[in-house]
Amino acid sequence: MKATFFDGKKITLDKNYPNPDLNETLVRVNLAGICGTDLEILDGYMQYNGILGHEFVGTVEKSDNPEMIGKRVVGEINAGCEKCDSCIKGLQRHCSNRTVLGILKRNGAFAELLSLPEKNLHVIPDSISDEQAVFVEPLAAAFEINEQVSLKPKWNVAVVGDGRLAQLIIQVIKLTCSNITCFGKHENKLEGLVQSGIKIKLGIESTDEQLFDLVVEATGSNSGFTDTMKLVKPRGIVVLKSTIASRENLDLTPTIINEITLIGSRCGLFKPAIDALATGKISVNSMIDSTFSLENFEDAINHAKKPDTLKVFLKP
Amino acid sequence: MKATFFDGKKITLDKNYPNPDLNETLVRVNLAGICGTDLEILDGYMQYNGILGHEFVGTVEKSDNPEMIGKRVVGEINAGCEKCDSCIKGLQRHCSNRTVLGILKRNGAFAELLSLPEKNLHVIPDSISDEQAVFVEPLAAAFEINEQVSLKPKWNVAVVGDGRLAQLIIQVIKLTCSNITCFGKHENKLEGLVQSGIKIKLGIESTDEQLFDLVVEATGSNSGFTDTMKLVKPRGIVVLKSTIASRENLDLTPTIINEITLIGSRCGLFKPAIDALATGKISVNSMIDSTFSLENFEDAINHAKKPDTLKVFLKP
Repeated sequence: MKATFFDGKKITLDKNYPNPDLNETLVRVNLAGICGTDLEILDGYMQYNGILGHEFVGTVEKSDNPEMIGKRVVGEINAGCEKCDSCIKGLQRHCSNRTVLGILKRNGAFAELLSLPEKNLHVIPDSISDEQAVFVEPLAAAFEINEQVSLKPKWNVAVVGDGRLAQLIIQVIKLTCSNITCFGKHENKLEGLVQSGIKIKLGIESTDEQLFDLVVEATGSNSGFTDTMKLVKPRGIVVLKSTIASRENLDLTPTIINEITLIGSRCGLFKPAIDALATGKISVNSMIDSTFSLENFEDAINHAKKPDTLKVFLKP
Repeated sequence: MKATFFDGKKITLDKNYPNPDLNETLVRVNLAGICGTDLEILDGYMQYNGILGHEFVGTVEKSDNPEMIGKRVVGEINAGCEKCDSCIKGLQRHCSNRTVLGILKRNGAFAELLSLPEKNLHVIPDSISDEQAVFVEPLAAAFEINEQVSLKPKWNVAVVGDGRLAQLIIQVIKLTCSNITCFGKHENKLEGLVQSGIKIKLGIESTDEQLFDLVVEATGSNSGFTDTMKLVKPRGIVVLKSTIASRENLDLTPTIINEITLIGSRCGLFKPAIDALATGKISVNSMIDSTFSLENFEDAINHAKKPDTLKVFLKP
């Protein structure tokens, strides 16, 4: 099969990469999405090598379950050992022996074929297009906030960051809270939010400090964390939605003095995300950017790296 | 009055320091305790200058309320503006204009006299000795965990640190949870815990990793935070009970990947602490070390700095 392979340093197209031969469901990839995590992995995060890509929609080609053949599916990216306490609780995404599609010890979606356990796959209704379906994985990560925090409609909420994940998070929180401010750096991304009733700010002013009941950090940067800690009220809640790779100059003192609750948040369950797209409660159409063939993966990655780009797709 | 004054660099005894003249209740200090925070302030933390000391028991000497005169009291250390949202909610300890006894813009207890608003004072029953009463403030800080986390009796709990605050935290958690392990560095301090049924460990082994539902960080050190993050289960809870002054090499990645909830925890309400001491539910007698006169404050501070010392008192 055709696949892009990352050897830990550079990514190349292999036209004769072996097909997945795991005893799992085989999926032909219709469309895959490039995510910020992919770009971080290309910079060395997770020390991953293999086929990248964890956002995809595909068609089942081989399965032990004949009913699945030909179905259009998306897939939860964590595969657990199915034996440990986490797996028994349904938290495969916290299994210490898990593999993660395109991120940890498991080849991903920037290829013609991928495999996953059948239980990871969700059939996608016809009302959701391929482009929309690719958003299920990051949208599920945004819905994870609802699993972890009981949102209150009266809360004053801030989202720090204006990228792809931040935009999804804002839509999810808006289902419960009407008072949301997005603190970003890119005027064009911020402007798109105004029509949905989101307040937008380029940078923090002193009057914004300690104003917010809930602040979601979605930049993954050191300075984003510092801004977040300025915005949150004493006894407030911070959701850390992006991995902060830096270990330098992170100040935990305000967390303790102001008794802040910091909640790390990662992958979520797919069902609420699929339902929200199917019913139109959440729209991702304004976030669709452009589609590249797998052969043009380098152009696709370079385009995805630009600060103003929204979702970029690869079509095998 | 006699007072020890810290000018930001060194601490000296002043035999003619002006009496407190605030329009507050005047308290003659019977006994004050030296706490880890005092030692950190002497090292430059909080950029405080003034009279140190925030753990005390005293006798009311002057008050607008005649019923208070002569009463033996302890005092909550945060005094709020009484006008802001935090103060209206009873969270004076989060008022952004607060003063804090011996820590922030308010002279403390290492002196013959101090003043506090009457609402900060709690009358101490006769069943609690002066030495025991000095523990009310740090014990309230330990009880703050109960205000913030709904402890489950079945939880496997770890406390990182074996110092004075850690010992109080262990006693408070033990009121609800029976399965507690203390990870410390000082054999003599750890040994005292065994008879209360606490498991003790000098350092972390790989089999301890990701084993605990709740981990309380009570060292305030960088390495204590790293250990804490190793011990906690995915989706577990970490209570940060000591200020971590260092900003270097703090890794927040496990917080996000393992979806940990970090809860900053500081001062608590005095009532549960006073009740627990009065009823004997919590005993602090084994933590009483030695008493020095205010004149010998230097010896007292040097003694408190030794790693094996428990609670040291100053008697004006």
